[in-house]
Amino acid sequence: MHNFSDATRFIQQADRFLVLSHLHPDGDAIGSTLAMGHLLRSLGKEVVMVNESPVPQKFRFLPETREILMPQEVSEKFHHVIALDAADRERMGTCRELFADGVQILNIDHHATNDLYGTINVVMPTAAATVEILFDWIEFMQCKVDLSLASYIYMGLLTDTGGFRYSNTTPKVLRQAARLVELGVKSHEIADIVLETTTIGQLNLLQKALSTLQLAQDGSIAWMVLKRNDIEPDQEVEGIVNYARNIEGVDVGILFREIDEQTVKVSLRSRKKTDVGQLAKSFGGGGHARAAGCTIHASLEEAQKSVLSRLQAKREFEEA
Amino acid sequence: MHNFSDATRFIQQADRFLVLSHLHPDGDAIGSTLAMGHLLRSLGKEVVMVNESPVPQKFRFLPETREILMPQEVSEKFHHVIALDAADRERMGTCRELFADGVQILNIDHHATNDLYGTINVVMPTAAATVEILFDWIEFMQCKVDLSLASYIYMGLLTDTGGFRYSNTTPKVLRQAARLVELGVKSHEIADIVLETTTIGQLNLLQKALSTLQLAQDGSIAWMVLKRNDIEPDQEVEGIVNYARNIEGVDVGILFREIDEQTVKVSLRSRKKTDVGQLAKSFGGGGHARAAGCTIHASLEEAQKSVLSRLQAKREFEEA
Ligand SMILES: [Mn+2]
Ligand SMILES: [Mn+2]
Repeated sequence: MHNFSDATRFIQQADRFLVLSHLHPDGDAIGSTLAMGHLLRSLGKEVVMVNESPVPQKFRFLPETREILMPQEVSEKFHHVIALDAADRERMGTCRELFADGVQILNIDHHATNDLYGTINVVMPTAAATVEILFDWIEFMQCKVDLSLASYIYMGLLTDTGGFRYSNTTPKVLRQAARLVELGVKSHEIADIVLETTTIGQLNLLQKALSTLQLAQDGSIAWMVLKRNDIEPDQEVEGIVNYARNIEGVDVGILFREIDEQTVKVSLRSRKKTDVGQLAKSFGGGGHARAAGCTIHASLEEAQKSVLSRLQAKREFEEA
Repeated sequence: MHNFSDATRFIQQADRFLVLSHLHPDGDAIGSTLAMGHLLRSLGKEVVMVNESPVPQKFRFLPETREILMPQEVSEKFHHVIALDAADRERMGTCRELFADGVQILNIDHHATNDLYGTINVVMPTAAATVEILFDWIEFMQCKVDLSLASYIYMGLLTDTGGFRYSNTTPKVLRQAARLVELGVKSHEIADIVLETTTIGQLNLLQKALSTLQLAQDGSIAWMVLKRNDIEPDQEVEGIVNYARNIEGVDVGILFREIDEQTVKVSLRSRKKTDVGQLAKSFGGGGHARAAGCTIHASLEEAQKSVLSRLQAKREFEEA
């Protein structure tokens, strides 16, 4: 749905907007929030930006992230809301409490699962990122793209395409990236900060995980284990499972993460063959064929045994 | 030097060519060799492709890599040579022994240090990769770019820009990438194989290195150590030092690698401030401000002491 005209009228008709995106924001959520806020201000509008979750450290090099508030810091109710990269209202968390009665929502998103909760919906599942849609719309409106705006858009493109490595990296995405670099975006600095930079805590965690690395089924399954005491509160564990999945010859990578004595979180990644979404679902979890997860109420040892045996049976069955 | 007309005449005037690039080939060396070989064959020419070193495992998913021979497998001498991504004749190794007397060389390269050894030199230091120059030339000649040719060019662009993360990722590179994806290049598969895939041996080595990770000078220096017995013959150690350099707050990352009791190889990477090229040179090594290395004839312990103390003194001096 490409109704940029309706979206343009939406921002023309009011003077004050709440701009938000989904909880646990990624680079596209933060990038699209900042881009939208920046654009509205450059058009003379007043803007409050909020997010249910704090802005992750790695995005804070962008000074405008300081203006993204927590909902509890805002006392006002808003009649005009722009929701970005959020597939449904649930994903907004308590930001919804800032909506006035009869609120009008402009819903801009690229998730195919978007339930079209907006008064106006600009939902384009073929877009790699919400910022891709924003960039199209900004060009439709013929607004000026300054360096800040260009950098926010670039950050969203970069992160939602996995650094231009996922299959959603279309020619259009690469051409948008080219135009943004032309506008002066320091693409290598953004990539360095957002994609390359790590912390000593994350490396220590990676080291512990790697020290447990094991292979099964002729090296086609690789798994690692993290115990309760390995992980500090709020530590990012995301990404570690990919080290197992990325081993040459491996099709399924797994990370078992002990939450407490009787709870284990299991992250599953697959390269090509095995549908790990099916496997996760058989344990009451979810996800898709290449990335999925589940929570198992058992000891770390039992969880490993049951996931590995069910996975091996599944793979043997499918190969037979 | 943009003399595509001379280069075009060079390939028109002969029927049989030797195509080569530099020893220890990277993705641009292999990509440009395959692209050139493929192009010449599509123009009805005969081609022998050689390289001083075996093709690294990670590039062998491309079937035409099997046709890149070692120089000792070739008994013929060539009158027409196309050298790619090679800054000087030294970099060709023993491939030079296949040159006939009075050999004519077409030298296509993007290294600023290229010494223009060719009969015809197409050397463009502003290009991010040799394949970028090849793509320009192919368009100049209005040759058809099939999927194989497009994939070889893409691989060179991808690897020489560090997955579009280095500062050489110009708008032009991104637009070339866009056109190649449009031609059908499976960019995510190439990125997965060439940039993401690792081996169990490399992860074990990473785990050993990470277990030695230490910080100094308020966390601005990070270093790791690998002992002789940690490393298997021919194992790739490249890349591990970046884990130290990429830690938040770190400016200099170092890897000390024991070669024997009295020899230590030191890899140095810096983010912004410290010129590690200067430091490496003070130990008889080389490199540039952001990436450098040296070999120290001392024990592992002594080498660590002297590099760290000289580095700390340098940083303190520069900050004073
Ligand atoms: Mn998104
Ligand atoms: Mn190169």
